[in-house]
Amino acid sequence: MFARETYVQRREILKNTVKSGILIIPGNKETGMNYKDNWYPFRQDSTFLYYMGINLPNLYIVIDLDEDREILFGDDLTPEDMVWVGASEPLNTYAEKCGIAEVKAMSKLKETVRKAKQKGQRLHYLPPYRSKVTIEISELTGIPVAEVGATKSIEFIKAVIAQRSIKSEEEIIELHKAVNITANMHRHAIRRTKHGVSEKQIAGELQAIAIAGGGNISFPIIFTKNGQYLHNHATQAVVENGDIVLCDCGAETAMNYAGDMTRTFPVAERFTAIQREIYSIVLDAHESSSSVLKPGHKFKDAHILACNRIVEGLKGLGLMKGDTQEAVNAGASTLFFQCGLGHFMGLDVHDMENFGEQLVGYTDEIKKSTDFGLKSLRLGKALEAGNVLTVEPGIYFNPYLIDAWKAQGKYSDFVNYDKVEQFKDFGGMRIEEDFLITTTGKQLLGEPLAKTIEELEELKNS
Amino acid sequence: MFARETYVQRREILKNTVKSGILIIPGNKETGMNYKDNWYPFRQDSTFLYYMGINLPNLYIVIDLDEDREILFGDDLTPEDMVWVGASEPLNTYAEKCGIAEVKAMSKLKETVRKAKQKGQRLHYLPPYRSKVTIEISELTGIPVAEVGATKSIEFIKAVIAQRSIKSEEEIIELHKAVNITANMHRHAIRRTKHGVSEKQIAGELQAIAIAGGGNISFPIIFTKNGQYLHNHATQAVVENGDIVLCDCGAETAMNYAGDMTRTFPVAERFTAIQREIYSIVLDAHESSSSVLKPGHKFKDAHILACNRIVEGLKGLGLMKGDTQEAVNAGASTLFFQCGLGHFMGLDVHDMENFGEQLVGYTDEIKKSTDFGLKSLRLGKALEAGNVLTVEPGIYFNPYLIDAWKAQGKYSDFVNYDKVEQFKDFGGMRIEEDFLITTTGKQLLGEPLAKTIEELEELKNS
Repeated sequence: MFARETYVQRREILKNTVKSGILIIPGNKETGMNYKDNWYPFRQDSTFLYYMGINLPNLYIVIDLDEDREILFGDDLTPEDMVWVGASEPLNTYAEKCGIAEVKAMSKLKETVRKAKQKGQRLHYLPPYRSKVTIEISELTGIPVAEVGATKSIEFIKAVIAQRSIKSEEEIIELHKAVNITANMHRHAIRRTKHGVSEKQIAGELQAIAIAGGGNISFPIIFTKNGQYLHNHATQAVVENGDIVLCDCGAETAMNYAGDMTRTFPVAERFTAIQREIYSIVLDAHESSSSVLKPGHKFKDAHILACNRIVEGLKGLGLMKGDTQEAVNAGASTLFFQCGLGHFMGLDVHDMENFGEQLVGYTDEIKKSTDFGLKSLRLGKALEAGNVLTVEPGIYFNPYLIDAWKAQGKYSDFVNYDKVEQFKDFGGMRIEEDFLITTTGKQLLGEPLAKTIEELEELKNS
Repeated sequence: MFARETYVQRREILKNTVKSGILIIPGNKETGMNYKDNWYPFRQDSTFLYYMGINLPNLYIVIDLDEDREILFGDDLTPEDMVWVGASEPLNTYAEKCGIAEVKAMSKLKETVRKAKQKGQRLHYLPPYRSKVTIEISELTGIPVAEVGATKSIEFIKAVIAQRSIKSEEEIIELHKAVNITANMHRHAIRRTKHGVSEKQIAGELQAIAIAGGGNISFPIIFTKNGQYLHNHATQAVVENGDIVLCDCGAETAMNYAGDMTRTFPVAERFTAIQREIYSIVLDAHESSSSVLKPGHKFKDAHILACNRIVEGLKGLGLMKGDTQEAVNAGASTLFFQCGLGHFMGLDVHDMENFGEQLVGYTDEIKKSTDFGLKSLRLGKALEAGNVLTVEPGIYFNPYLIDAWKAQGKYSDFVNYDKVEQFKDFGGMRIEEDFLITTTGKQLLGEPLAKTIEELEELKNS
């Protein structure tokens, strides 16, 4: 946990923003895999962590804005619990550590919410992403399960987004830590990937590094020779010389701050000539689009710049043709780059994605697009100092998409399908790094990791 | 997947047992950790796997017993899904692989259930252990969320338990595989655990072995120098010479069959004299209680035998006193052995625990006890050939329990608390192996793993 004062101040700002009603903040519970008590690794809710820092299951916080009361609801371990899990500090101690004055038994929660409702107080809650919480919110408030999502508090959501979007110094230290563990995972992947190993073999080793770092992986590891599929997880497939491997993985620290990086590299000792060509385009798109990041610059413009660089590069190889800007405006670049340039990162790897991308990454003026490609851009708005985000352009030769669009003659003014045909088994490449927006520009998070072709080949063969 | 005929036959038996109504069998969905789309590793429901073998999310099966129809509900990937996850075989192909004739879109499920209800057919479903499924069953059947658990079909549950309790030859092959990967995890743990490593470091490496094996861990890894707490997971604590480490872990195969073993060993090269003494008692309890396993023998009796051996051993060390059988009958052994001797194992590491331990491990004649200790014995009934189970006695010096019971004078006729005081920082020891009940006795699953003090020390220092 951070210092007590951190949590007190964060809640103070929150209370001054939302002003009236009660805030109901559920912590997460353990979640069963194949039966109730066979748990997935516990992951506390990020907003709960942000305001209270208590990394334990089965808690609720209620903040009464009208009476200025903060209450932690939960139950201390019984002697019998201690047979199974040992002792734990009492909840009073945890409440003290984050500056919360009152602790009550979980059995009192329903009554507290009921009384607030009776008094006509607004019940603010965030949109649940776990069904268990949906059911609980329904039971607490009397709102039917099917309507819980729709009755979330936009006011509360916006207040949380405003705070969590700007990282404090202590958060940035944690983020550097997360990215450094993440970079270690990549160093291991680049060095250990050899002809004949399975994707899952390496993916398991990467998870071990994340776990040894004190936390766990921040999202399911993408380690695949089929990087053309954007979220393709590791399988039992064996990688071979000639393949390129896309590794997109991240650690989260014991305090649950996330890292998220991608490297693409050959299984063999060297990139092939054509792999070098495509890689160089992705690297150029990465360098160009990250170089413009600074407060006030729209992330959507950085995305468009990356698209431009990709089209330019692919024109150079004869895969695309026509006017670059027109091709990007028309959406032709999405045949090769089907997703967005990046996203916020923090306590969640896609930070605050549970609140919805329009509210987190856009504004009333800059709405999220519904077009293929741009609709997967999670962040579009102007940047602010303190934002932390990823930059991750890529080129993906998806054979299904190529076949479908070729058959439709889609973007035939901009795409040389005959040439593209030759790349249908190429795979996909992505380069991803994490940045902090500073007052004047940007700062790379973590120690630099091999990124150029020369650096990657050197690391691979070291 | 197993051969088509396997699934057809399993469903045939099920249909002949339950006879009338419709069976609603939900597959599991992806589950978000900290937001909806940041998924935990997918784990299919075990009963769904048993009858259909399809390891994909977002499916339902409805079996109409009255009209003898089997329908798989689900949706094929869209071209846009293929951008993210690549291609997949159509559901028709999967249905064929498990011998199901009809495939319908998920949107048709509700209508199918509604019609059955209208016709007055009984709607059979198993007790959900995931909140998402609870909500879905409620939406499908009109039963309120809070009552879904209570309206489960006991008839359906009993039919499934009867089938899944007896493992077929092909299942036993998978179980051997799971236990062999599990034994490899233990070999690694025993050799790699050295003064100065953190619990999480080793736990991560063990998970990597499970993942490389094609599946994942079958339950959260227990790797701890505080083995006195029965389900204590790995922490960032560093282990040191003089500590003993309890490692309880298991792999599940790509087909989701589980292994589950425990070894306890010193961090240093050798057990200390007192560690040897306690270990020898646990080993004796393990050997004695597993030697009696055979069809017709009640597992509860094997548990009682283990308790007896533990009391005998502790009497030898002066920690207990009085008549052994009386001590066990009174429950005095539960100061040191607070849980049960073992449990069924199969597609779930605690096989079918979602159906409730009374139905799975007991009968109308042998009810599950509510006494401390015995109430944690998940299996009590007479064994049958084809059962697969664990045997895992242990001795746990839980300082909180010792203090509490000493203060109450509990079992003071049988416990020498003054002597026990000296063991309050000893920790805990457990030995666990997995067995198949054969027609004449039992068979160890997997290749034997170092278990005696000599074998463990030899492996450690090899």
